[in-house]
Amino acid sequence: MTKVVQASAPAKVILFGEHAVVYGYPAIAVALNLRAKVSASLIEQNTSSNDSYLYLIAKDYNIERKIGVSNQEEFQRLTNTEKKVIEPFLALIKVFQQKFETLFSVKIEVTSSIPKGAGLGSSAAVSVATSTALSELLGIDLSLAEISALAYEAEKVLHGTPSGIDNTTATYGAGLIYEKGSFTPIELPEIPLIIGNTGVERQTRKLVGYVRYLHDKYPEIVSPILEQMGKITREAISILKNNDNLDLQRLGELMNINHGLLSAVGVSSLELDVLVNEARKHGALGAKLTGAGGGGCMIALIDDNSKETVKRALTEKKAETIATHIATKGALLYDS
Amino acid sequence: MTKVVQASAPAKVILFGEHAVVYGYPAIAVALNLRAKVSASLIEQNTSSNDSYLYLIAKDYNIERKIGVSNQEEFQRLTNTEKKVIEPFLALIKVFQQKFETLFSVKIEVTSSIPKGAGLGSSAAVSVATSTALSELLGIDLSLAEISALAYEAEKVLHGTPSGIDNTTATYGAGLIYEKGSFTPIELPEIPLIIGNTGVERQTRKLVGYVRYLHDKYPEIVSPILEQMGKITREAISILKNNDNLDLQRLGELMNINHGLLSAVGVSSLELDVLVNEARKHGALGAKLTGAGGGGCMIALIDDNSKETVKRALTEKKAETIATHIATKGALLYDS
Repeated sequence: MTKVVQASAPAKVILFGEHAVVYGYPAIAVALNLRAKVSASLIEQNTSSNDSYLYLIAKDYNIERKIGVSNQEEFQRLTNTEKKVIEPFLALIKVFQQKFETLFSVKIEVTSSIPKGAGLGSSAAVSVATSTALSELLGIDLSLAEISALAYEAEKVLHGTPSGIDNTTATYGAGLIYEKGSFTPIELPEIPLIIGNTGVERQTRKLVGYVRYLHDKYPEIVSPILEQMGKITREAISILKNNDNLDLQRLGELMNINHGLLSAVGVSSLELDVLVNEARKHGALGAKLTGAGGGGCMIALIDDNSKETVKRALTEKKAETIATHIATKGALLYDS
Repeated sequence: MTKVVQASAPAKVILFGEHAVVYGYPAIAVALNLRAKVSASLIEQNTSSNDSYLYLIAKDYNIERKIGVSNQEEFQRLTNTEKKVIEPFLALIKVFQQKFETLFSVKIEVTSSIPKGAGLGSSAAVSVATSTALSELLGIDLSLAEISALAYEAEKVLHGTPSGIDNTTATYGAGLIYEKGSFTPIELPEIPLIIGNTGVERQTRKLVGYVRYLHDKYPEIVSPILEQMGKITREAISILKNNDNLDLQRLGELMNINHGLLSAVGVSSLELDVLVNEARKHGALGAKLTGAGGGGCMIALIDDNSKETVKRALTEKKAETIATHIATKGALLYDS
């Protein structure tokens, strides 16, 4: 019988520190209980060729396709969407083949509850889940750091030189402190969050550039604002580390202050401000935009009392709204 | 023929420095080309009594009423609205009578293009215009400082111990720097502004208290935010003083940063954020809430290109929207 391996990895969200991180301040990302799931099984090599195959089923994109891993001609004939979905899988398989000197063909079925293109690390979660599945399938014992590094190779294909926050959080789960290029995982409880997706495309490059413009034009004013964001992140980290006596009110107030500072450096938007205000009005302990801004998602910290009211309020504002919580687990393998 | 004196005084708006002013940083208020106008004429004393009369016509409130200046009984029979409108006039007349040892009865007709209760200094403009008219009517030569001080007496009746920003700006016009209890008028050109009134009541006391709460709970984070507001105000003042080469783009960007910082200390609101974002989206050079926040008004800095688009955008969001400009003149007397 064919061995089928199942693995999953979580979405991530920046809790504090976006933009300030560019200026050397810490950021903290957390894993969300939204997962990309991968089923993988080896398929027979085509003996008449040296190439290996990927047979990909991605129902979220209506894709079911068999393609030669190194067949450039075949790849070029794909639609743009197909290319975007398939390319990181091909990259990952190639890295596995080169690194572990093994030629293999593989059937991969992928599903995900993570909104795409919303800054929630959907692609990294898929790559981490796939790396995890492939290592098990091939009988290669990999550390979490190695899983994350392999997934990063696929991320580079999609995003150029990403920070590595997405694949690292998807691998380790819980919380991840990022500062000056190094990552420190921290344990976290399952804090409940609501994600509101504006549906407006994020403008990462433009907004990182705009903050730089403001910073260079008003250094005396904008540098201290970024510095305060750094202080907020450190304060939030110390709250989160005090796991036994978690001060969620304080955490929420810091989110609110942080949102204002992000708005001050020009990275909020009408849609984000509306959702953030609605969440607060309906009982959220705090709310802020997350990630690059200009669109994408906001997050609200909620409790049992406010979960439904906040969710309803954001949905009424036409946001894709997800009630979730921090995922304590990162990459997971399932018995099949 | 009865001598009729006409006088007017402008509305004010806080351009920069609200809330930070409580912590010793400067604020700058400007006069707006919205005016309260007063027509005043002396009327005959009732010889059978020692009391003098006010005959007030305030069409904005549907009030036309003759009342004894010191007749407490008569005053108590007024409706609450009548009391609120009439009381500062009575206070002003009493102050004139006591200070200048003269008993007089007066007919006053007041009209105003200043929205009431919106933080635009409507009552101070009325009191300044009335003081100006009374001094002319009684042949008393008063300095601007004296006019302002008399109007402040009427303001105290309505507002307890107001800062004095409203009556001082209404008296001097143009710009007024307020810092640690002292006022410095500065000349300004007729910079175009749009005022958007959320129609939501301001929450001055509550929000001053909330900033204090945040400041005391997160001193390391909130004190520097207030300090940055102070820097923004100083920077704005130096831009405004460079009258010949006014950098409106810079002024607008500082307004945007300042709005974010005000939002960070919790004094913005859904309605204010919506109007501020809409103004920016439709071409405003900058936009921010003005005054205490939580409701009340926002201001947008516009140019000829964006005036109509911004006005339309705010009106579509159901805001009372006024296109105006900085008034270079304060209290004015008209020939009749």
